[in-house]
Amino acid sequence: MEKKTAILLAEGFEETEAIVAIDVLRRVDIRIDTLASGASRDIQSYHKIPMRMDALLSERGDELYDAILLPGGPQGARNLGADPLVAEFVRRHLEAGKLVCAICSAGAHVLAKNKLLGGRHYVCSGDNYKLYDDGVYVDRPIVREGNLLTCKGMGLAFEFAFTVATLLIGPEKVEEQADHVYFDHWRKDFPIADF
Amino acid sequence: MEKKTAILLAEGFEETEAIVAIDVLRRVDIRIDTLASGASRDIQSYHKIPMRMDALLSERGDELYDAILLPGGPQGARNLGADPLVAEFVRRHLEAGKLVCAICSAGAHVLAKNKLLGGRHYVCSGDNYKLYDDGVYVDRPIVREGNLLTCKGMGLAFEFAFTVATLLIGPEKVEEQADHVYFDHWRKDFPIADF
Repeated sequence: MEKKTAILLAEGFEETEAIVAIDVLRRVDIRIDTLASGASRDIQSYHKIPMRMDALLSERGDELYDAILLPGGPQGARNLGADPLVAEFVRRHLEAGKLVCAICSAGAHVLAKNKLLGGRHYVCSGDNYKLYDDGVYVDRPIVREGNLLTCKGMGLAFEFAFTVATLLIGPEKVEEQADHVYFDHWRKDFPIADF
Repeated sequence: MEKKTAILLAEGFEETEAIVAIDVLRRVDIRIDTLASGASRDIQSYHKIPMRMDALLSERGDELYDAILLPGGPQGARNLGADPLVAEFVRRHLEAGKLVCAICSAGAHVLAKNKLLGGRHYVCSGDNYKLYDDGVYVDRPIVREGNLLTCKGMGLAFEFAFTVATLLIGPEKVEEQADHVYFDHWRKDFPIADF
């Protein structure tokens, strides 16, 4: 059965973190819906690129996806974290055992800020973990605990996307695609810290 | 003086290749204008993400940039290569000694197709080089000859962007940014083949 995922986006989202994930997941035939937090499908990224999302999160709030993805961006992640619909959507997916995947400051400004981590290990960019009293910060490129996957930041966007894809559909098609796009770093230093 | 670059985009452009370059260049304060080939600023990427560009290429056709960038995408690169304005714009920049940077199939479908390579060495994705009788294909991740820089494909999007930035403003700010975003592959295996 086709895997179905969603990426949540707010004004100021980190464009590389979002686009690499969308690109890679669509390449391996995983469905990914781009859902806008807020009232408009038209959103500007961190570095001012206007993009149109597939739908509003408020239109898809009742759906249950196999995985949801949260990109960073200094303001983008804060905007996501301030949207009660986002927090509720993430909480529902965590409780249903679905994969929740956050990169860069989203681990802090979305997950920790809304007390969605509990005692779980996670990573985020910079010192953002110090702002919130939730979760156990680990300084590793990619950290996984149960159905929670976090990644340190933008320069790991390919590793993040390939990891999400592998967790959803296994390694075969993902490795084929990594080869196809000449991403030679993939198998050499697969960097997940598992808890 | 601020460096000024442009990226040329047509319907179907490879979104990771374009967005990583725009993101990285803007992070190191290099201006990059997103210019649409064709009649509309609204373009859909290879994996169907609608984006709005800064201007039409036809509105900026007389400008001289320090560098121009050409992303791939199976249809995107063919669309760029079929636009006579693109070929003329690239030719003028090559002749003026400005940096011309092509990734993935753009090296073939834009540069070789329009006989813009001459005897120069270049790389492109897959077997696309076999379609055109221009340039000397070299199977390396990144190839440079004079003011022509080519890159094999999407999985090297970060290396491509950091290389373009380094050629324009030197290594200092670029290495800082590579560290800042946790791109650890940068200095370890800097892969330019110089001719």
